[in-house]
Amino acid sequence: MIPVSAVIPGPSASPRRRPIGLTGVAVTGGLWADRMRRNREVSLLHGERQLEAAGNFANLRSAASGGGDYAGEADDSGLTFPFLDSDVYKWLEAVGWESARGADPGLMRMADRAIDLVGGAQREDGYLNSYFQITSPDRQFVDLEWGHELYTIGHLVQAAIAWKRSLNDERLLAMAGRAVDRIGAELGPGRRELIDGHPLIEMALVELYRTTGAERHLELAATLVERRGRGLLKPDRFGPEYWQDHASVRTAREPAGHAVRQLYLDCGAVDLAVETHDDELLAAVTRRWEAMVASRTYLTGGLGARQRDEAFGEAYELPPDVAYAETCAAIASVMLAWRLLLATGEQRYADLIERTSLNGLLSGLGLDGTEYFYANPLHVRRADGAGTRGPTSTRRRPWYPCACCPPNLMRFLATYPDLVATVDPAGLAIHQFVGGTIEIDAPFGHVRVEMRTEYPWDGAIDLRVEDAPGGEWTLTARVPAWCRAGSVTVDGAVAGIEPDADELSFTRAWRTGDEVRIALEMPARLTVPDRRIDAVRGTVAVERGPLVYAVEEVDLPPGAALETIEADPATPPSLAAPDPALPGITVVDVAVRVRDPDGAGVWPYEPASAPAESQRSATVRAVPYFAWGNRGPGGMRVWLPRTD
Amino acid sequence: MIPVSAVIPGPSASPRRRPIGLTGVAVTGGLWADRMRRNREVSLLHGERQLEAAGNFANLRSAASGGGDYAGEADDSGLTFPFLDSDVYKWLEAVGWESARGADPGLMRMADRAIDLVGGAQREDGYLNSYFQITSPDRQFVDLEWGHELYTIGHLVQAAIAWKRSLNDERLLAMAGRAVDRIGAELGPGRRELIDGHPLIEMALVELYRTTGAERHLELAATLVERRGRGLLKPDRFGPEYWQDHASVRTAREPAGHAVRQLYLDCGAVDLAVETHDDELLAAVTRRWEAMVASRTYLTGGLGARQRDEAFGEAYELPPDVAYAETCAAIASVMLAWRLLLATGEQRYADLIERTSLNGLLSGLGLDGTEYFYANPLHVRRADGAGTRGPTSTRRRPWYPCACCPPNLMRFLATYPDLVATVDPAGLAIHQFVGGTIEIDAPFGHVRVEMRTEYPWDGAIDLRVEDAPGGEWTLTARVPAWCRAGSVTVDGAVAGIEPDADELSFTRAWRTGDEVRIALEMPARLTVPDRRIDAVRGTVAVERGPLVYAVEEVDLPPGAALETIEADPATPPSLAAPDPALPGITVVDVAVRVRDPDGAGVWPYEPASAPAESQRSATVRAVPYFAWGNRGPGGMRVWLPRTD
Repeated sequence: MIPVSAVIPGPSASPRRRPIGLTGVAVTGGLWADRMRRNREVSLLHGERQLEAAGNFANLRSAASGGGDYAGEADDSGLTFPFLDSDVYKWLEAVGWESARGADPGLMRMADRAIDLVGGAQREDGYLNSYFQITSPDRQFVDLEWGHELYTIGHLVQAAIAWKRSLNDERLLAMAGRAVDRIGAELGPGRRELIDGHPLIEMALVELYRTTGAERHLELAATLVERRGRGLLKPDRFGPEYWQDHASVRTAREPAGHAVRQLYLDCGAVDLAVETHDDELLAAVTRRWEAMVASRTYLTGGLGARQRDEAFGEAYELPPDVAYAETCAAIASVMLAWRLLLATGEQRYADLIERTSLNGLLSGLGLDGTEYFYANPLHVRRADGAGTRGPTSTRRRPWYPCACCPPNLMRFLATYPDLVATVDPAGLAIHQFVGGTIEIDAPFGHVRVEMRTEYPWDGAIDLRVEDAPGGEWTLTARVPAWCRAGSVTVDGAVAGIEPDADELSFTRAWRTGDEVRIALEMPARLTVPDRRIDAVRGTVAVERGPLVYAVEEVDLPPGAALETIEADPATPPSLAAPDPALPGITVVDVAVRVRDPDGAGVWPYEPASAPAESQRSATVRAVPYFAWGNRGPGGMRVWLPRTD
Repeated sequence: MIPVSAVIPGPSASPRRRPIGLTGVAVTGGLWADRMRRNREVSLLHGERQLEAAGNFANLRSAASGGGDYAGEADDSGLTFPFLDSDVYKWLEAVGWESARGADPGLMRMADRAIDLVGGAQREDGYLNSYFQITSPDRQFVDLEWGHELYTIGHLVQAAIAWKRSLNDERLLAMAGRAVDRIGAELGPGRRELIDGHPLIEMALVELYRTTGAERHLELAATLVERRGRGLLKPDRFGPEYWQDHASVRTAREPAGHAVRQLYLDCGAVDLAVETHDDELLAAVTRRWEAMVASRTYLTGGLGARQRDEAFGEAYELPPDVAYAETCAAIASVMLAWRLLLATGEQRYADLIERTSLNGLLSGLGLDGTEYFYANPLHVRRADGAGTRGPTSTRRRPWYPCACCPPNLMRFLATYPDLVATVDPAGLAIHQFVGGTIEIDAPFGHVRVEMRTEYPWDGAIDLRVEDAPGGEWTLTARVPAWCRAGSVTVDGAVAGIEPDADELSFTRAWRTGDEVRIALEMPARLTVPDRRIDAVRGTVAVERGPLVYAVEEVDLPPGAALETIEADPATPPSLAAPDPALPGITVVDVAVRVRDPDGAGVWPYEPASAPAESQRSATVRAVPYFAWGNRGPGGMRVWLPRTD
């Protein structure tokens, strides 16, 4: 049975593991179930209203009618974004995947209207991009640097695949196919040697090949991937690294430039490598991923240090305050890690998926499901300070002029169950811990496993085999990288967790009722950064399980400020009484010293031998980073200065 | 006698001290004499060539002829700068002041040509701005936000004053007067209530009043200053703080927005306050200056933390790596501190002038006099990294598309002697230590004092009275804020230096041959930042006397890297053998530990209890910050991580 999944390696591909898919995992309880429910019941409706209000639908209508102006707020530089169609496609993609769990009539009516708009806007020759159709119909495929024409169609393809796989609805697939063939005729193998300024279509084309079997889509994907790094794009203001045109996908050793662009490109490269058994290409992406994790990833999994060009920056350049860490980059990172996990089977990719999705990704979404962060810094000095404008807003907003992140969160949540487990010929592997049921017709037979857990709030995870074929198979569960100690029993018999083990694997002829009970110790803990990360030297962060914590200004005791508290690394944080304003969320207490700094008007540099300032002890609350900014405006910091 | 000086408070003004002027101080030996000589002999000629090559002169020709395109490279956003004329004016101003020390025939010929071009370009109605004259003659005074029309004329006024005061040449003054009257007719009191997006003209107008006696210039300056902070400019992409239009000059408590704009505005406010005895206005500027020094000034005196909008940023937001710290902001800071020094007589302003001019300002100029930094960060990871493009280039460049800094350095160096000493009715005060002679017809008689010193390389400063009137007067010398210990003798008799004294004052009937010998102890020392400066927590900087030092990649021992060395705060740095590549420059040795960090591919965050990495001892050289980047490309850092 073919799963309902965004990434399905083809029959002759070489992934180490294969997806179980959205419908193979029922997420029924806990944090993710709650987020998913809110996505379905609140965010998707909110998204439709915003797409109407922001003019995205109006643009498709104008393109269809040949009249009207292109809608959309201008960015900082006064430019209008030419990729507003892509937000419609991402929203449609989210509705498509969501509908695999049961179509909501209201959502389906909205989606039908949107699909009709897309169909109406597409030109007879297959071309589709409302910006160019409205503003400059004679400039198709001219501004490859900034036009986003391939990027936008890539999102249409992904939406089309969602509707095909979830509902066997081929309306969008027909449109996407024609749009892709128009691109192929223009820029395909043997045609004009150009690439898009924003990668994305590469992975969409591989998936289109997987869905339709048409080799030309794989060829076009390969062509676009291999053309990169040859200076085919004008360097423009941010240089060729910005769009990964400085070095080939096979040779670039480090992630560079615009973070989302790099990550989407590498997604396509992995898809291509898996489909074509190209180990060299896979190794190149793996090397970049390792360099990224080691030196360019925030504790929250956030990516992209620089606001100016939304770029990675240099190794160990990870400022917490002016961090960009775009929500879309976190989503793209999960997309890449998922592909690498399927390709290699390695749990380290699931570790990053967990860290990212529970921290620097989920922070992008307000608890109510209708407000979004575009940037996810780890330190905000003042709620009305620095980044109150534009994408670096320090308060969540209902929508953005460049609204890539909100519908990206919608499609992420709609596909979240996909990330929970995979299958291979010998067994089932669990990568993410959620309350729910995994059910699959595996190569070794029909399997159903129930997973009971309050994760990420508690480290107890009970796996109960509800249905099993007769023979032997392997049940594997990830041991999170954050875990320092824990225990496991299999049907009551104690089994050890090896130090440094990244997974537990038990092979046997499982019977209904068999239980694996995992208990991961989950004390709140203090974490220090690598000493090469200049911007957070001399600080500690609070973590518990997979969650990164943050101290919010609103929780500070009288007389303390975010810039005068220091955590004592010798005193571990402890669980605190729940905050009624954050229901269901575990908060912790951190012992701090509050310093009394010198008054104003004083030169802020002094001899190394200067006497210490006076201090007093206090306790401050820390909340999960993803939940910050939900109790009114105020500052926040993840990294706390540590006492000497 | 009226001094030749850029700032001359009027006869009825209320400054605490008055300038001696350019010609009252002969700087004959040492670092500043060398810089000034190179400015005269190399940089000013280089500037003229660059103004020709970049099209600044061509624009004036085109404006005169009514034909041709506007020249000038576009910026990052593809916009051409409308203020290219101002670079011509700054260069002319520099030549004007320089000529006070003796006109160089070659420079005078070049300047005459430039003055003719300016005169030829000016319209009959007094309007003068080649950008608008060439590109959009019907849009005069329409784009107040970005047009820089008043800013540009402000620079013309400053050039005109230089030529009037240095050479009694009134050609530019006539042009400036007509241009200013055109502005007054358009935006003056009772006319359209508008202000320029870039302050500067305010101080120029006060000085024009001081030069011409025409009250209308003072009134226009007052009008423009008082209009600010009322939202007369469209907020645009960076918000009203960007151009100080968010709060009135009298009430804004903290420096905000674009650093150069804030500083130039406050220069005008001080000039106005001094001229109109407006203590409230002076107090408002003083308060902002104190807030700036305490929380928004780099160790080097650099100002402006943010690259995106060249802005101050928030209190204690002082990242060393992505610092902007524009050379022009350092110059503007000296201009403001100088005005505050004259207004109040306080040596703390001279301290900031010293720190800024010897570090974050002088760093903008290559040792050869023809290469410039626009941004002056305190940490560059890789010479070919981050900021190799645009104004944040990590290598000095011969010129910039926005070339405000190079000619600003030229006028700064041409007027440097102005900053050395002041006079008041009772005596002479020395603020900066240079080899040379101070001579003035003071209110108390004709005085000549010779200053012998190798400062800033050595703390011995000998003052010898060469000529003195008969009666008593006071000789005052600043005690630098960096100084922790020292001694002084007056004619051989030991006099103490009080702890925390900011100056030494000796009142007597000085006779020719009297000597004051000051010996300031000048050990290399380690400095720590205020703990609220997040970005450099856990580091130390090396300083010696007024100089900030930096470690350059090129000086590292084998196996060490800028990110793996740590200084031991218990071991003071020591003087090192001179570097032949840096003649005349004192370098120091810093004892460091070199760490062996984990390999690549590792998650860079670990438990607070993780074991320390292995280390070994080494010594690295540090060079004065101003001299970095003169021995080929490579990284650099001022703040060194300190060992635990």
